[in-house]
Amino acid sequence: MAIVTLLTDSGESDHYVAAIKAKIISVNPGIRIEDISHRIQPTDIAHAAFVLKSVFRDFPKGTVHLVGVDASGNRGDSYIAIQLEDHFFVGADNGLFGLISERPHQNLVELNTINSITTTFPERDVFAPIAAKLASGVSLTDLGKPMQVFKKMIDRQVKATKKQIAGTVVRVDNFGNLITNIPKEAFDILSKGKTYTIQFGGEKFRRIQTQYNQAEQGECFIVFNSLGVLEIGIYKGNASELLGLEYDSMVNIVFDE
Amino acid sequence: MAIVTLLTDSGESDHYVAAIKAKIISVNPGIRIEDISHRIQPTDIAHAAFVLKSVFRDFPKGTVHLVGVDASGNRGDSYIAIQLEDHFFVGADNGLFGLISERPHQNLVELNTINSITTTFPERDVFAPIAAKLASGVSLTDLGKPMQVFKKMIDRQVKATKKQIAGTVVRVDNFGNLITNIPKEAFDILSKGKTYTIQFGGEKFRRIQTQYNQAEQGECFIVFNSLGVLEIGIYKGNASELLGLEYDSMVNIVFDE
Amino acid sequence: MAIVTLLTDSGESDHYVAAIKAKIISVNPGIRIEDISHRIQPTDIAHAAFVLKSVFRDFPKGTVHLVGVDASGNRGDSYIAIQLEDHFFVGADNGLFGLISERPHQNLVELNTINSITTTFPERDVFAPIAAKLASGVSLTDLGKPMQVFKKMIDRQVKATKKQIAGTVVRVDNFGNLITNIPKEAFDILSKGKTYTIQFGGEKFRRIQTQYNQAEQGECFIVFNSLGVLEIGIYKGNASELLGLEYDSMVNIVFDE
Repeated sequence: MAIVTLLTDSGESDHYVAAIKAKIISVNPGIRIEDISHRIQPTDIAHAAFVLKSVFRDFPKGTVHLVGVDASGNRGDSYIAIQLEDHFFVGADNGLFGLISERPHQNLVELNTINSITTTFPERDVFAPIAAKLASGVSLTDLGKPMQVFKKMIDRQVKATKKQIAGTVVRVDNFGNLITNIPKEAFDILSKGKTYTIQFGGEKFRRIQTQYNQAEQGECFIVFNSLGVLEIGIYKGNASELLGLEYDSMVNIVFDE
Repeated sequence: MAIVTLLTDSGESDHYVAAIKAKIISVNPGIRIEDISHRIQPTDIAHAAFVLKSVFRDFPKGTVHLVGVDASGNRGDSYIAIQLEDHFFVGADNGLFGLISERPHQNLVELNTINSITTTFPERDVFAPIAAKLASGVSLTDLGKPMQVFKKMIDRQVKATKKQIAGTVVRVDNFGNLITNIPKEAFDILSKGKTYTIQFGGEKFRRIQTQYNQAEQGECFIVFNSLGVLEIGIYKGNASELLGLEYDSMVNIVFDE
Repeated sequence: MAIVTLLTDSGESDHYVAAIKAKIISVNPGIRIEDISHRIQPTDIAHAAFVLKSVFRDFPKGTVHLVGVDASGNRGDSYIAIQLEDHFFVGADNGLFGLISERPHQNLVELNTINSITTTFPERDVFAPIAAKLASGVSLTDLGKPMQVFKKMIDRQVKATKKQIAGTVVRVDNFGNLITNIPKEAFDILSKGKTYTIQFGGEKFRRIQTQYNQAEQGECFIVFNSLGVLEIGIYKGNASELLGLEYDSMVNIVFDE
């Protein structure tokens, strides 16, 4: 039986998360439920998409990911279930799922079209029973109406040329580390045979480490992290606070001639 | 085997929650444990009762709900286990359980009366083993001394007449939405054939929506929510902050002649 | 099959915790995972050690405790797995494990020595697969290279003489209660036949209660808690805030002649 993961902006001081779990358990008490996070900033689709994109492939194929972030979305947003990269996703068609993968989806249905219900709590009333049924082996095509496309937002793109890679901070994590959208692959190709300068917040650096602890205490480290992107931090410190950088701050790698 | 849910004011930075779980697992490693919340404000019985009341019926009948909120209660408070609406509750007799249901209890025992222990951590030392035994199928009457009544506090009552429904805010949730104690049932009956004005915080509204997203961004929505009570929010905003309303603020529905 | 517990400084707003769980589940989907806490202050070894020391023995023997706190530690810190008091511990050799027990370890290996990997996320890439294998019954000696000793830090010691016990606050918990390092055993021996004064923050007290609720509201209670150490709080209040005491504040028990 598959696992169901939960990713919401519900917080942990209300009954919302427990209500979603209770509904899943009511459909099938054998389903394992694992939280990804319930501390997504309310309606923050970018944050949710970053977290989901960073971890869903670590779960076994067939895992069902229930996403309740800005689930009321905008007027007219459908509720959908997607099969993508051999994983299942259940949530609102508000653009979030368009940010988590470049691959074409394998299957897509619109939910709640037959005997449709009106609810202020779709996570419990629509997503949870659907997620539970998917995790129990029900075929996705039996759970909704076929749909062709779901909403895709345009993520801020890194701009990579022979002269420089211009990226941005896409996530400030719990430690204050700054995670960018600069991929190691692009860097490896473009930096061949060249020296480089990494620039952000008025600072310039000429070295990239392989471990967080290769900087001195209180000094910057720059690594390509476990997601394969450039990450900046301050060893035993909070880079976001100390450098004054935040979501969307610019980070450039300039290649010397 | 039944599930045990946990609802406490322990927070998540200490060992308290893990100690409760470890004790349950030690009694019976097959028991499934699901958190409701550990972020109840210390000793805040009203908050805890609201959360528990809002979700316990979503779990399967026979679920055991361990509640550790103000568990030291007041001098002389007993520890009790209750069967109520086909669910089990284990905790301190401090008035919290009197706020979660209007129904008479089915069974009630006082705990820790034989070979009684003195402890500063009753959640782990008394409630956890009892909850684990209940979840394993032990009869409630075998776990304590029969008791007739448990403490019932008087919740602030909504006052409903033909002229108006006078209610209050009973919960400000993670999103800043204001959840009142005004039931849809009362509204449906009293509003028949009349127009109405909803008043709170100096504002007046004449419409109730069915979905959060039927208001414009930055504007109020008013819905009867998934709990069947009136809820006020600001679409993509924080109503509590923006309207200056909080727990116990007044919300009235005035019916026009 | 054993349980794996998780104790980290990852916070709950990122993908880190879910990535660790996903990796464990990928190795063996039958393993039960229970969180101890993910809200350890980043790199705060003392806090983590206190929480771990306070709860690990409550879990069944054979439980595997994965600890990801300051996991990058200092340059040159190994990754290790320890068998201690019939429990298993997996984490960085940064001194944390030296604070949780006085007993000699039963077994100790260094991890990641064969086909070693370089990673910025050892919790997922090294600790999680090892923890999963230990929990699945693989012998600890098959998982790494034998090692003789692991790092032990010196915890601040309580100083106990016939005239006084000089201790400190080792933890301010979620409620603002001040947990000290003064053991009940030492107090019972040294206080025989004597009166005593408990001194902290300019205050003096001559009584120790057995329950939190034996003080008046707003007044101090002093108990020997479920960990067997002296704990100070304010009934229905926050002692740390009200008394201005914090981690490392001094607490003395002076015995009268």
